[in-house]
Amino acid sequence: MGSPKSLHGVNFAPPRSFGTVLKANLKETLFPDDPFYEFKNEKLSTRILKGIQYFVPICQWLPKYNFGLFKFDLLAGITIASLAIPQGISYAKLAELPPIIGLYSSFVPPLIYAIFGSSKHLAVGTVATCSLIMAESIQQKVKPEDNMQLYVGLFYTATLISGLLQTALGVFRLGFLVDFLSHSTITGFMGGTALVICLQQLKGMLGLKHFTSHTDVVHVLRAVFENRKEWTWQCAVVGVIFLTFLQLSRYVRKKKPNLFWVSAIAPIIVVVVGCLFAYLFNAEKHGIAIVGKLSKGINPPSIHLINFSPEYISVVLKAGIVTAMVSLAEGIAIGRSFSMMNNEQIDGNKEMVAIGLMNIVGSLTSCYLSTGPFSKTAVNHNAGCRSQMSNVVMSMCMLLTLLFLAPLFGYTPLVALASIIMSAMLGLIDYEKAYHLYKTDKFDFLICMVAFFGVAFISMDMGLMMSVGLALVRALLYVARPPTCKLGTVTNNAFRDIEQYPGSKQTPGMLILKLGSPIYFPNSNYVRERILRWVRDEQSLENSKRNEIEYLILDFGGVTSIDITGVETLFETRRSLAAKSIKIILVNPRLGVMEKLIVTRFIDVIGKESVFLTIEEAIENCRFSLNSSSQTKKEDVEIA
Amino acid sequence: MGSPKSLHGVNFAPPRSFGTVLKANLKETLFPDDPFYEFKNEKLSTRILKGIQYFVPICQWLPKYNFGLFKFDLLAGITIASLAIPQGISYAKLAELPPIIGLYSSFVPPLIYAIFGSSKHLAVGTVATCSLIMAESIQQKVKPEDNMQLYVGLFYTATLISGLLQTALGVFRLGFLVDFLSHSTITGFMGGTALVICLQQLKGMLGLKHFTSHTDVVHVLRAVFENRKEWTWQCAVVGVIFLTFLQLSRYVRKKKPNLFWVSAIAPIIVVVVGCLFAYLFNAEKHGIAIVGKLSKGINPPSIHLINFSPEYISVVLKAGIVTAMVSLAEGIAIGRSFSMMNNEQIDGNKEMVAIGLMNIVGSLTSCYLSTGPFSKTAVNHNAGCRSQMSNVVMSMCMLLTLLFLAPLFGYTPLVALASIIMSAMLGLIDYEKAYHLYKTDKFDFLICMVAFFGVAFISMDMGLMMSVGLALVRALLYVARPPTCKLGTVTNNAFRDIEQYPGSKQTPGMLILKLGSPIYFPNSNYVRERILRWVRDEQSLENSKRNEIEYLILDFGGVTSIDITGVETLFETRRSLAAKSIKIILVNPRLGVMEKLIVTRFIDVIGKESVFLTIEEAIENCRFSLNSSSQTKKEDVEIA
Repeated sequence: MGSPKSLHGVNFAPPRSFGTVLKANLKETLFPDDPFYEFKNEKLSTRILKGIQYFVPICQWLPKYNFGLFKFDLLAGITIASLAIPQGISYAKLAELPPIIGLYSSFVPPLIYAIFGSSKHLAVGTVATCSLIMAESIQQKVKPEDNMQLYVGLFYTATLISGLLQTALGVFRLGFLVDFLSHSTITGFMGGTALVICLQQLKGMLGLKHFTSHTDVVHVLRAVFENRKEWTWQCAVVGVIFLTFLQLSRYVRKKKPNLFWVSAIAPIIVVVVGCLFAYLFNAEKHGIAIVGKLSKGINPPSIHLINFSPEYISVVLKAGIVTAMVSLAEGIAIGRSFSMMNNEQIDGNKEMVAIGLMNIVGSLTSCYLSTGPFSKTAVNHNAGCRSQMSNVVMSMCMLLTLLFLAPLFGYTPLVALASIIMSAMLGLIDYEKAYHLYKTDKFDFLICMVAFFGVAFISMDMGLMMSVGLALVRALLYVARPPTCKLGTVTNNAFRDIEQYPGSKQTPGMLILKLGSPIYFPNSNYVRERILRWVRDEQSLENSKRNEIEYLILDFGGVTSIDITGVETLFETRRSLAAKSIKIILVNPRLGVMEKLIVTRFIDVIGKESVFLTIEEAIENCRFSLNSSSQTKKEDVEIA
Repeated sequence: MGSPKSLHGVNFAPPRSFGTVLKANLKETLFPDDPFYEFKNEKLSTRILKGIQYFVPICQWLPKYNFGLFKFDLLAGITIASLAIPQGISYAKLAELPPIIGLYSSFVPPLIYAIFGSSKHLAVGTVATCSLIMAESIQQKVKPEDNMQLYVGLFYTATLISGLLQTALGVFRLGFLVDFLSHSTITGFMGGTALVICLQQLKGMLGLKHFTSHTDVVHVLRAVFENRKEWTWQCAVVGVIFLTFLQLSRYVRKKKPNLFWVSAIAPIIVVVVGCLFAYLFNAEKHGIAIVGKLSKGINPPSIHLINFSPEYISVVLKAGIVTAMVSLAEGIAIGRSFSMMNNEQIDGNKEMVAIGLMNIVGSLTSCYLSTGPFSKTAVNHNAGCRSQMSNVVMSMCMLLTLLFLAPLFGYTPLVALASIIMSAMLGLIDYEKAYHLYKTDKFDFLICMVAFFGVAFISMDMGLMMSVGLALVRALLYVARPPTCKLGTVTNNAFRDIEQYPGSKQTPGMLILKLGSPIYFPNSNYVRERILRWVRDEQSLENSKRNEIEYLILDFGGVTSIDITGVETLFETRRSLAAKSIKIILVNPRLGVMEKLIVTRFIDVIGKESVFLTIEEAIENCRFSLNSSSQTKKEDVEIA
């Protein structure tokens, strides 16, 4: 009978070659945003130029740069530098690193980012979350008080691992892995981390000397109350004053967005006032601890501190991997949302390479993990930055600070740092988002709460992993239980879910089902059982409503792909239905699915005449055969 | 303006309550086959009776049982008993257990299965794969030659864990987890295991005394060649003769399916001939080792050997979990395929409970892990079994063997066992299936090969895990990269993929995209980028073909569900498109999706007038507004 390439208008063209399919799939998987689309149809020289500009964005924006833009970037750069100094010292202190490392970390990485980064608004800096995760992990093996050099070395090593991983993810275009940290996970994780970090600050606020290296709520609160004797009222008073001032400045920004600079420079004001206060009143003697000696000079090289010895490799690997993902999630999400606000396209994978490179270089020049923190980036944007130059300006400010001013910051009272961190963290607990999740999606809310309570009561990485695990279970459940629905006629040619559109009518003798999602190994047994249950339900209705099905029409339009297990399921379903004298009719299999059905001979088994382009045609055809067969039966009766 | 429940016939009914949705979802997830459908609309007494019959199937079939059926089951039972004796001894030897345990394991578990099992064809017995996995895992901690009692105790413990896990999976209706072992994984894993086990038999075939406890090809071959001095030609000759005989009997079955009993009784013939030969010719003196003393008597209790001490818990847990999944996959798949052949419905979860219970009871009565092996079940089916009674008959045969004949089997030459195992394993390497995979789905083939080579060259559990991991990556890739396609008009009201149906026409001013699969956190960024790329591609065509899009029509019919991250993506996409003055139109969101869009106010933002039931209506409406707006423009020009 030959093999027509089309019947009832259905395309039965032989499958595309393996190479073609592979190429198309790889492209969709790794290059969904088609980053090289600008290169098409260009001369070789233009391609090379554009290639360089693509990989090193500074080659693209610097030639067009002018003094008009620089004025804006200068202002923005100075503003974020004024934030970088207190935050740098605070977060280094949070990680129990020497505070100067926090300043170092705002000097080199911004320069690297300015060269390779493509976001105009991202401001580079260290973040509280990653600082604490690294500290929590590394302190399992080494306490800073025992061997500071080793401790610092492990931070650099973890940063190097983090940078290498980030670069690799970007180069192999695996950036989509970051998407597996869902918004719900991030909301809960950030909230939990903020809570934990706030509680940690009680140490500084109350002037405690002894504390715990655990981060969970129970251990921290116990440490706070067990050391009641160390509480210093002077510290607490100063802390509350600073915190009130910082929160007020945030309130001002909220009410009058134009006054954003008030909250932007508030932290440096706290530091400067704190330094003056400590210097003038000799605060140390009144029980208010200060940062201590900070030496002048720029970042020393740190390559000799990198330590891959087997004893520590497990903790640095863990710290590196977890912080790589968390800092990427923050950096990418933020870069993306600001660029979206300004209608620019950001290539997430390229951003990863930029962030990774700055961490690799950073780890060799005495910097620890940095990314694009939200607070700093928002300030940068509000301060009117125009390009990556604002990061260069910040970096230069840090250079001047390191060369001339660093010793002055040694007078900063620890309580000032604690109040800065606390104030920053309070802004990260997003009650409204959590409530929104509760209102709109209970499972997302659960994922969020698992992250929040996991971080708060177990540990930061456990909380994160539990939440990601739960989200993956959900993703796999979606995959394992794809919804099917029974279709009825709404209008002449529209067939819709009978549950959703109760007015729609069924056609006697037929059952029309709409399948969705891929049919493959995790769900194929379910799909078969569900189809058979639809059929059984239909046949077991009361006599009057009973539908003696002769045709099962499967709308394949929503089936995006199928694997071997899925095809075997179809064969089995066909066999089970054949035993009940029900025929399978397929409607509109999509390209990839049709190819698989042809190559596995399923189409040959059910016959090309059982595949239709639209449900309407399928029904018409089935109705015709139903009528003619009942005609035949009637004739048989008459003849008999 | 109020909020009409429907506009253009679209159903905007307020979302169902959380409870309703949760109940529906739980039902689909855990009870997709609606196991209790027979109970509906019945009296209480009938329900209780049916309930007991449901949970204890023997109550259902035994009352209807009669002598006519028993004749068939008697024959089948004796046939599988004749297979159970050599296989039991062989696989126990493979696990380096005392051979009598293999016989014990064919006595108690079949009785339990006969009570709780619902498959009429499944024949219970031990399997080579699981025997070797358990041995490999437990030998990491304890060598049988060092402390046989402890070694055996750990086997019972692992079996108990396996049974508990299987029962729990069944009771909590989590049987779908077994589906994550895809057909491709199982094909590769079985093939790899068969290869590894065959190579292991070289020990018996060549009469080696020293061997390795590793299972991978490299170690085993090295062990074979390093012990060249121990090779015994007498063994090899006998082994080859036995193997040839067994393979011939298989060939006979293949050619004449009616003669299946030839291959079914061949192993017991080999054993009996081997015993006679060893007894008469005093084979041991000629370097042919025999099984050794087997004592009479039925299974002793083994509860005192169960050992949960922390030192061994990790290996028994691992062995228990891996073998639980592997044996379930084999048992369920086999029960299912034979019941499908006979058009019966099997409830996978109930089967798990039955298999789990028989392993729990087994572990307390000196049996190790048993399931429904393929070879035995096929023999049972071919021998004409009619019910679970054939397992009872086999069990009784084993009882007689244990009470009277066991010592005789002590003369079995090890080489006979090796040839039996080898012959069974050669049948498990499914070249044809692998070739079929290669032909039809390269990724499935890869998953299969990873399992095969992983098992052959690394270790059995690593091979299995790598393959499952790869399959999951694929499942997640499907999820992370759902296909979208551009639709065009094929006939008046049918809109199809333009790539698949190149003749279809686009409507100027509009772009129609069909989305598929859920839109949620793992893929939402991709979906947004892909949509924007479709728009960009459309706009960047050459002048003549350029399509100035004003409307983006998204066919949501294939979107099975959406989460918060997905909805946020839609908001972002809308914002990006609004900047290009493109309006989003939604067509046919499904029930769950529509509810989520209403509750998150996305519908309010785009307006109910932008949602349509069919693409056709959407196009008509958009065309109307396009015309009237160009009309207005024209009028503007005229007035100006």
